[in-house]
Amino acid sequence: MEMWYTEEQTENVRFSIRCDRQRYSAESDFQRIEIFSTPEFGDVLVLDDRIMLTEKDEFIYHEMITHIPMAVNPDIKNVLVIGAGDGGTVRELTRYASIENIDMVEIDRMVVDACKNYLGFVSCALSDKRVHIYIDDGLRFVRGVDNKYDLIIVDSTDPIGPGEGLFTSEFYGNCYNALNSSGILVNQHESPYYQSYQRAMKLAHKKILDLFPICKVYQASIPTYPSGHWLFGFASKKFHPIHDLDKAKWEALGIKTKYYNTRLHEGCFALPTYVEDILRQYEQTN
Amino acid sequence: MEMWYTEEQTENVRFSIRCDRQRYSAESDFQRIEIFSTPEFGDVLVLDDRIMLTEKDEFIYHEMITHIPMAVNPDIKNVLVIGAGDGGTVRELTRYASIENIDMVEIDRMVVDACKNYLGFVSCALSDKRVHIYIDDGLRFVRGVDNKYDLIIVDSTDPIGPGEGLFTSEFYGNCYNALNSSGILVNQHESPYYQSYQRAMKLAHKKILDLFPICKVYQASIPTYPSGHWLFGFASKKFHPIHDLDKAKWEALGIKTKYYNTRLHEGCFALPTYVEDILRQYEQTN
Repeated sequence: MEMWYTEEQTENVRFSIRCDRQRYSAESDFQRIEIFSTPEFGDVLVLDDRIMLTEKDEFIYHEMITHIPMAVNPDIKNVLVIGAGDGGTVRELTRYASIENIDMVEIDRMVVDACKNYLGFVSCALSDKRVHIYIDDGLRFVRGVDNKYDLIIVDSTDPIGPGEGLFTSEFYGNCYNALNSSGILVNQHESPYYQSYQRAMKLAHKKILDLFPICKVYQASIPTYPSGHWLFGFASKKFHPIHDLDKAKWEALGIKTKYYNTRLHEGCFALPTYVEDILRQYEQTN
Repeated sequence: MEMWYTEEQTENVRFSIRCDRQRYSAESDFQRIEIFSTPEFGDVLVLDDRIMLTEKDEFIYHEMITHIPMAVNPDIKNVLVIGAGDGGTVRELTRYASIENIDMVEIDRMVVDACKNYLGFVSCALSDKRVHIYIDDGLRFVRGVDNKYDLIIVDSTDPIGPGEGLFTSEFYGNCYNALNSSGILVNQHESPYYQSYQRAMKLAHKKILDLFPICKVYQASIPTYPSGHWLFGFASKKFHPIHDLDKAKWEALGIKTKYYNTRLHEGCFALPTYVEDILRQYEQTN
């Protein structure tokens, strides 16, 4: 028997992965959670029919969402991570001895538990003493928090289903308030290539741009995400993601990475013209 | 009825595209040639069950294989393009008024004819007066050519089937000889992500590295190629791809591009650590 997981990346495009077996399948209050074991990608986490991570390439997403802000401000001590129930972002953060506190807010306890039970490679740092897990709605959690965090990472799912509230002006406004005066916000920005993802990218970019004085978009190649071309938003009240990068300081930390490096840090903010045009056009017309 | 084109990117990964209709299908002496019309990507050219180009994203590949060398040496006048029967690389080259001669060598006349008849968006410049099309084996064509070209672009298919001879030491050695003292070679380098493509990348990199004093690899996001993460090799007897870039001079040409820009030119040579490691490791051990 052959078993394939097929994702409809758009109504006209399908991405299929051969599976050895299904390791976990459950319906939580929020979404369908599935874990497959595959020969090409190792274990794969799927939420509501969308690949969230694979063992083979999750390092790309998690390194790029974490080390970019950390290399810009190595004095970050207090971090809020929203979403990211799998623990991958937290794992990368715990590699910095200088970080004192990581609050992680995930709406779906069953995602955290499934990753703890089945995906140790990504959830391994959730038991770190500095990590505090809150099972709560990220939108509600940041409401009313003031001037507290050095860094907020929004590691959301797509803006449909449980991740929907995380793409609103109210949410980003609350994040702005929850950051201190040197605060950095990093947001997973979806992809510029397929229409539905491009819409989400514009939505996030516009809302963050309205709030933060510094707002830049960077990219990575993540093969198991639709189009493989993924974007992140870097926003800050104070720090410029390239001008304020201290390469030597980050390199002195000796953190071994598989995707991120300080040359790539500078390079990844150089976007294709068609992406620049979309971002710029949207700024002007909406 | 639903019609889907499915590509086996590896034996464990499939990429499927909904098709409206098949516009062309033929078996040449070298390969199977198919053209589909699709709602997501427009017209799609498939050779031996591998997507060569789509109307939606061919601009990425063709801009990146062409404008990188042209921006490094805007005095390029005499160009050899090997493979590239679709005409996309030639189309980008003809946008430079300064180019005097473009020799294009394609082994398969039926590819050229099919693209001329069905894919005008990509073959449109094949009738340019400066373009000379030779239906020949690229390996044979460059043999014995000496000190002639300013630029050779190897726009090959994968190193199986008709493209196989283009991944050999003999071929790259002949390219070296066919270039003049300021010559540049650009080679499509496959992808680092899936094993079989990674093998081809190493093969090309090692062979070119043995010949040219300057040899750098750069990347682009091409959604319809396996993994979406694609590499190119830039090699030269004289020019460094970043140090010798004259941004102002290229920008003064006023060539409108959708992917390439001079900021991205610098950024695209910053590779992920795992790709750097593969390239470096291979250099040392083979």
